[in-house]
Parts: sequence; structure tokens; C-alpha cells
Amino acid sequence: MHDIIFALNQQKGKQFLQKITGKQPQFVCTLGTTETAKIPGISAAGANPEITDYTPPADIELLLLGKCKCINGVPVTPDGIPTPALVTMSALKLADVSVLPVNAGLRVLPQVPFLELGAKPGKDIRTGRAVENAAEVLERAKVAGQILSKSVDYLIVGESIPGGTTTALGVLLAMGVNGEGKVSSSMPSNPHDLKTKTVEEGLKAVGAEAGGFKDDPLGAVSCVGDPMMPAFAGLVLGAAERVPVLMAGGTQTTAVLAVVNGLNPKVLGNVAIGTTRWIINDQTSDIRGIVSQIADVPILAADLDFGGSQFSGLRAYEAGVVKEGVGVGGSTIAAMVKSEGAVTKQKMLEEVERNYEQLLSSKPNTN
Amino acid sequence: MHDIIFALNQQKGKQFLQKITGKQPQFVCTLGTTETAKIPGISAAGANPEITDYTPPADIELLLLGKCKCINGVPVTPDGIPTPALVTMSALKLADVSVLPVNAGLRVLPQVPFLELGAKPGKDIRTGRAVENAAEVLERAKVAGQILSKSVDYLIVGESIPGGTTTALGVLLAMGVNGEGKVSSSMPSNPHDLKTKTVEEGLKAVGAEAGGFKDDPLGAVSCVGDPMMPAFAGLVLGAAERVPVLMAGGTQTTAVLAVVNGLNPKVLGNVAIGTTRWIINDQTSDIRGIVSQIADVPILAADLDFGGSQFSGLRAYEAGVVKEGVGVGGSTIAAMVKSEGAVTKQKMLEEVERNYEQLLSSKPNTN
Repeated sequence: MHDIIFALNQQKGKQFLQKITGKQPQFVCTLGTTETAKIPGISAAGANPEITDYTPPADIELLLLGKCKCINGVPVTPDGIPTPALVTMSALKLADVSVLPVNAGLRVLPQVPFLELGAKPGKDIRTGRAVENAAEVLERAKVAGQILSKSVDYLIVGESIPGGTTTALGVLLAMGVNGEGKVSSSMPSNPHDLKTKTVEEGLKAVGAEAGGFKDDPLGAVSCVGDPMMPAFAGLVLGAAERVPVLMAGGTQTTAVLAVVNGLNPKVLGNVAIGTTRWIINDQTSDIRGIVSQIADVPILAADLDFGGSQFSGLRAYEAGVVKEGVGVGGSTIAAMVKSEGAVTKQKMLEEVERNYEQLLSSKPNTN
Repeated sequence: MHDIIFALNQQKGKQFLQKITGKQPQFVCTLGTTETAKIPGISAAGANPEITDYTPPADIELLLLGKCKCINGVPVTPDGIPTPALVTMSALKLADVSVLPVNAGLRVLPQVPFLELGAKPGKDIRTGRAVENAAEVLERAKVAGQILSKSVDYLIVGESIPGGTTTALGVLLAMGVNGEGKVSSSMPSNPHDLKTKTVEEGLKAVGAEAGGFKDDPLGAVSCVGDPMMPAFAGLVLGAAERVPVLMAGGTQTTAVLAVVNGLNPKVLGNVAIGTTRWIINDQTSDIRGIVSQIADVPILAADLDFGGSQFSGLRAYEAGVVKEGVGVGGSTIAAMVKSEGAVTKQKMLEEVERNYEQLLSSKPNTN
């Protein structure tokens, strides 16, 4: 009925969709930064590495206000391809779903309300001391998840953190999950060697080996992770005891899944991963291969297709640019489910094109 | 059916109760500080004036964690009477309702998740420059209210700000509402003269007169208000377009009501004030007399009665200490409505006594 692909654990995936049918979600978006994103060649989430600090706050301003305040225009890749927040914005509009931003280690704060958890910007994982106060952030995020789970039907948790697939690889390897060559990239050609080398440097800096943090998820995050992870994991741990939680994102979510699984696997019966067709069809990564090693949770993928778009900036998504981010897949799935299938991949493309056109024609703000 | 008193606009009050029956609320608690609270004799929300900075964060920690982290024990008045947060905690437990804290100008941050709106601690209103960025905070709070209104059934908005009745008097007088001798106090003897003198100094400092900010609610707040007000008002303005909003509190809420009424009176059809019997029966204040001057909204009062308590600290509430704060009345009303009357005044007293006993017997934390 829906343009949703059951990419892993089909039966559980269908059960999850049943659970959220007829329900109103709250989208919660964890926003962080890591100095790791500034290693040349790691991230395309910004026109250049230095500007990646502005990408998450700009993304969330776009979602909440329909325009960015902390930058002119909207975030783009170095080739000018627009931020995935544009797609998320379109899905949330169609579904009439709201976003609650979470400061999960931002360097630049957005000019909108956000949930504060005491997270600090992440350091370069090559130091082996990537996240300062992971336990504290996790604890507060858990309380936040509990708070929300008492008043909302279900949660979609998404993320925006440039460099996030490299830190994800870090936590996966540190916890003994084979993620090498399996995490995705916002670039068509995936710099796997650079990512692996970066992670290895981080582990080496604290004298650890791959698998050395097998039973210590917070240790893995603190060493080679990023501040988005304890925030995201805490929200899942706090909320999923009571309501379904859709973990929205690409291979970054697998590191969070490993953390959640390591701390309280029981909640995972109420959890699914929601991503995009671009991720599950990606030849340079393998989200199924990672998740299968961790836990028996379903992967759902929004069957988005921008191949027929009139805009080259959107057609580029079909060539493997961007792929995911800011909860594109999860929010699209929510829109499709809430509309009982009325929101199709075609309807999504039309809405994305409409919003893209508006953004292109609007004057840069002068704030 | 319920132990709820219709204190003003009975018919609209009944309609409001009908609207929220069978619904699950989110309690949102705005937490602020103002240097005004440190004027000797103004506030009893803390054992001494300097400690009032710790009262709101300690209150919210108590609500979320069942104990305070930023202070030992729990907040008390100079006479050792326990914080009203104890009563709110009991109501929320009985109703299984969660609290979302909002930083509405705190000087000391709580060690729990909270919504950040960019508010700064309030200055002494005698300067005539009480709140720095009222418009910005109002705008962000409005967005927050809109966010929440899309995923929750209805909102209860409460407050904790020591010195709040004096700043309330400030905004009322500045906007031409006769609040003199009408705002309440956390002390049995209400220092009306001191409050009026304090407000007059503030107005004089900017060359304004009573009523000088009649059509400028944000001007009134900026001059002689406090940072809780734009946060609270923004939440109401953003949420009440879509869901019912119960403004929880005593005479502080009337200043917020004046601000909301001045900015968008249309939303008030979805608004009620929820307070306590201690406020509406208070001989030293007149909440009905203030509200009647502003708008046609109902006042509901939780018919709480601690006269039969075994604890002198609770019986003191009947002598006019505390009366309201941290959404005591609103949260109790919500518990009564949600339980379809099963939560009675007697049941509330039992729960409050149980929690009070636990707090008295628990060791002070050593954080």
C-alpha cells in the first residue's frame, strides 16, 4: 500500500508499521558537531569543512521556520546539492508533524527553541577523547525520552551531524561490530580508507583495539564516537519502554543501535530503523550487514525517487549524493503512514520540488 | 463530580473541563529568576533571598527525579514550609503526567533536560530594564508552543519564579490593569506597599506612568516584568491556536494573561486559568478582580485542603503560606479530570503526605 520498502526483518517491520498507524508522532532531531568532520575529505555536509558547524543549526532552522537564520540560503554540498532537510521539511509539512530540536553538541546554536541536555561539541576522534560527558548526556536524554513518551503517540528520532558516518564506524569497530567498508557517505565515492585510518588512530591514541569496548558502549562513544550518540541513544532508551520509536537515519543509526543494545536490549522490541532507498541500494555501504550483527530490528526504507525531477540538484540524489540526513527516511515513512498511503513517492517529489523552487526564488536573508 | 471550584466564568470553565476530559496533557514548567526577588521582604520562595536562584531548578529536579540535585533537601520557606513542587509532584504521579522544564531566565541551571529559549535572568525591576530580550524569547516560545501543540492533546503551562507576584504587579500596572493590593504572596502577610513602591520605582526609572504600556505588552515586560512572562505567554500564544491550554498558577498568571490578551486575544477562547482554593480564598489578594479587568477567561481552582494533615508543614498551607507555585492548582486539576474524579482532595492529601514523609526520611544528597 505504502511506498515503503521492507529492507530487513520484513515481518517485524510490518508489525511496527501497524503499531504506528493512526498515531501522531513527534519528530525529535538530535543536532551535533564533531571536529572529525573537519578532516579534509571526510564530510560533504557543507560547502567546505569549516562551515559544517553551521549545517545542523541551519538545517533545523529550515525545518522550523522555513528558512535558515544562521546562514544565508540553505546548506549545500560542495557541488551545490541542497541539504536533505529540504526533503524532511516536505515530509513533515505533508504529515503536519512537528520537530523538536535537541542540542546534542552544537558549536553554533540555532535561533529556535531546542532541548538542552548539557552536550558539548565533539572532538576529533583521532585524539581518542571524542566525547566529554557521554554518561551525563545519556542520562538526561533518557529523562527527556521518558517525558515525551508520556504525552506523544510515538517518536521519530533523527540526527544531523557532519562527519557522523566516520564516528559511527568508530563506535562500531570499538564495540566489535564489523563496519569496515559498510558505513555510508554523503559523497558518491565513499572514502572508506580515510574513515578506517581515522578510527584506528583514535583507538591507538588510548591503546585500544577493535572490539576493545565490546561491553562498554559509553566508553566507545567517549573514545571514538560523537555527542549525537548518547543523546539519540538516551532518547530511544527513555521513550521505547512506553511508545514505538523510529530511529531515522542511515548508517549513523547503527552505532546508536549498538549503544542501545549494549545498555538495554529489551527496548528494541519497540524500535525500527527508518531510512531511504538511497541508503539500502547504496553499493558503497551495507546497512543491513551492520544491523544484522547487532540486533533483530527491522529496517524500513522510504522508496523516494528523484530521477524524474526537473531539477538537477534533486536528480543528483539518484547519483548517490547525500542519501540521508535530518531524518529524511523516517519522516517520509511517517508521512506515508499517517496519510494512509496518500503521500506517495510521486507526491513527495512534487512537494520537494515546490519547496526547492520557493527556496531558490527567495532572497538570501540579511540577518 | 470533581473537587474543582469554578471560581470565575463557570460556564466557560465547565466547557473547558469538557474539552480536556479523556485527554493526556503535557505539563510545561517555565522557570525563571529575577533580581527583584532579592529585595528584602519580597519573596518567601527560599530560606533566604540569596537562595531564591536555586528554588526553580531545585523544584524542577524534584518533579523530574524525585529529589533535588542542585541543593540538599528540598526548597522551603524561611519557616521551613516545603515547596509547592511537592504537591505538584504528587498530582503528576497520580495522573501519570510528565513535565517539560523550560529555561525562562534561570541563573542556576537544573541537572535535567530543559527547553532552551535564549532567556536571560531578570534584573531588578527598580532599574526599569527588567528583561533584556523579551521579543526574542516570546518568538521562540511561540514556536515551541506550536511544536508541542501538534503532538500533545493539551498543555498545562506552569511557572516557578521567586518574586513573581511583584513583577506581575509591575506588568499589570504598566498595562493599566488595577492590580494594586490584588496580587498574592507566598507569605501569610502580603507586603503590598513594598510591592507597589518597587513597581513605581521601576516605572519612574524610565519616565513611565501606570498605564503607560497599555498597548505595549512587551514594553511592559521589558520594563517591570520578568523573563518567565514572555516564555509563558509565547507558549500560550503558540499552542492555544490548536489545543486547550491551562495556565497554571496564581496571580502571576494574570500578568501573562494581560500580555497574551494584548498580543492575540483570539487564542483566549482555548484558555483557562487553573489555581488553588488557597488563592481564590485569599483575603490579601484578588485574582478574580484582576482577571475580570483583562479578559473573559474562566478560573478553575483545585479544592485542596491540608487542614487535616498530620504534618504541621502541610497544615501551614491552610494558614496562607505558599498558596501556589510550580503549577500546583493546574496539575491537581489535570489529575482530577484525568482520573474522572478518582483523585479527590483526600486522595491528594494522602499522596502529598506520603511523598513528604519519604522526602523527610531520605538522606540529604551529597552531590
